[in-house]
Amino acid sequence: MDIEKYLDHKKKLTEKAMADLVPNGKVLTGNLHNAMRYSLEAGGKRIRPVLALAACEAVGGSLDCVMPAACALEFIHTYSLIHDDLPAMDDDDYRRGKPTCHKAFDEATAILAGDALLTAAFEIMSRKDLFKGVDADTLLGAAHDISKGAGAAGMVGGQLADMEAEGKTVDLPTLEFIHTHKTGALILASVKAGAKLGGAGKDELLSLVKYGEFAGLAFQVADDILDVTASTETLGKDAGSDEARGKATYPALLGLKEARERAAELLKRALESLDGFDEKADPLREIAKYIVERKS
Amino acid sequence: MDIEKYLDHKKKLTEKAMADLVPNGKVLTGNLHNAMRYSLEAGGKRIRPVLALAACEAVGGSLDCVMPAACALEFIHTYSLIHDDLPAMDDDDYRRGKPTCHKAFDEATAILAGDALLTAAFEIMSRKDLFKGVDADTLLGAAHDISKGAGAAGMVGGQLADMEAEGKTVDLPTLEFIHTHKTGALILASVKAGAKLGGAGKDELLSLVKYGEFAGLAFQVADDILDVTASTETLGKDAGSDEARGKATYPALLGLKEARERAAELLKRALESLDGFDEKADPLREIAKYIVERKS
Repeated sequence: MDIEKYLDHKKKLTEKAMADLVPNGKVLTGNLHNAMRYSLEAGGKRIRPVLALAACEAVGGSLDCVMPAACALEFIHTYSLIHDDLPAMDDDDYRRGKPTCHKAFDEATAILAGDALLTAAFEIMSRKDLFKGVDADTLLGAAHDISKGAGAAGMVGGQLADMEAEGKTVDLPTLEFIHTHKTGALILASVKAGAKLGGAGKDELLSLVKYGEFAGLAFQVADDILDVTASTETLGKDAGSDEARGKATYPALLGLKEARERAAELLKRALESLDGFDEKADPLREIAKYIVERKS
Repeated sequence: MDIEKYLDHKKKLTEKAMADLVPNGKVLTGNLHNAMRYSLEAGGKRIRPVLALAACEAVGGSLDCVMPAACALEFIHTYSLIHDDLPAMDDDDYRRGKPTCHKAFDEATAILAGDALLTAAFEIMSRKDLFKGVDADTLLGAAHDISKGAGAAGMVGGQLADMEAEGKTVDLPTLEFIHTHKTGALILASVKAGAKLGGAGKDELLSLVKYGEFAGLAFQVADDILDVTASTETLGKDAGSDEARGKATYPALLGLKEARERAAELLKRALESLDGFDEKADPLREIAKYIVERKS
């Protein structure tokens, strides 16, 4: 299969669905909706939605079961970027080559646009009418996976751990904690929620959870490597910014060679988790390879 | 009935339930959980949880059906206070006589603690096992009411409209838009979710939605009046701070006398909405009176 074509197709489907789900402007709160759309439309790989769609397909589910959840996941990812970029956090002026939300609008609007996107994700996840053929219990289960992955025990917890570790000497278990929480938890949630909404059986779900864990960590190890090896132009953000900021990374801790070996090992284990699946899981297999081998 | 005693009892029940639901500390994210607990434990009237409990009781539901939702509502209210207090927003150093979250911790931790509390609310609302005797469809409905009340079409939208109106000349429809969204929407959601979880019939729900709308607006009109008439000591925050900040308020727009008449009219209509209910709705009746007549 042509993974680039698959990713591009699914990305476009997601972006179309997102445009239908993001709130439309109202007189008094025009700027809020503008800021939400501005950040949602800033692009990106849409890897979380695509993983949710692919996990749903891997267990034989249709896209109608999962698309709104895929959008909710991208809403949450987008909110996390808006808040991460704030002056009190990473203080970034650019993201994907465009001014960050608080630069394009202002800080208050950016904080609130992030809050509104996070909330909108759960407005979506609580609307059974949006999910074709999904029963209420399954939808609650998927909503719970997503909220857990996004919250204190997941992404937000990892984000604070990352900030607290800045400029400090960090050992490998700490780095792994940060990565599995900051990035891994929402990637895992994407796979898990997608599989549940697609009607995964218990054993299928267990295998896909393993896939999600390995793929999630592989994604972040690859990100760390890219920050060292890629050019600013390819990345769309400052290359080498992790090091400049005193952030702990795999290459810094293990060296580039060993970090690459670690990424390859995680990829291998992600692929092994899919051994019991047929060709419907090929997109998941190719996405895992793409995650590790991508150039930006 | 003794409303003060009722409020105090329900407040204590809620605070006990909240303590069980707030995440416990982990080595690397200790500060996140500390900041969440710090703000949750800062006190307050817990009026949203109490309204949810009272609405559930009004339709004959038991507290087991609604308590986790009551806590989720207070999590959301608390997150909104943390973010409102940030330097980029209202820039408040004190809240209820204690340093605000970003003063007690730091800005990044406060932003993330708010994010985590909002997310935790939906972690709770997606756990059917926490809601005794509530079916999944009803729980999704309540979760949707809460997310809608909290998001761009509700509280967050009102918060930005409020910020955008600061220092400008605001007319009554705009002020009412701000108030019905910033405060009213989550109060309405509290009543609506509580009623649904308690098993409200269609007509009961319609009446309680009216009650929630009138009570929500009355709450904010009363708040505006208190800001003018109460002392800083009674309020636990700076009295007169609305005026100092150039915020539009009912007394500023209508004069104190007419603002008081407006609050009384809203109270009357809130009470009329409950005409079809028996004595099980007495707590809701007394809460509406308390909202308008309170001194802090």
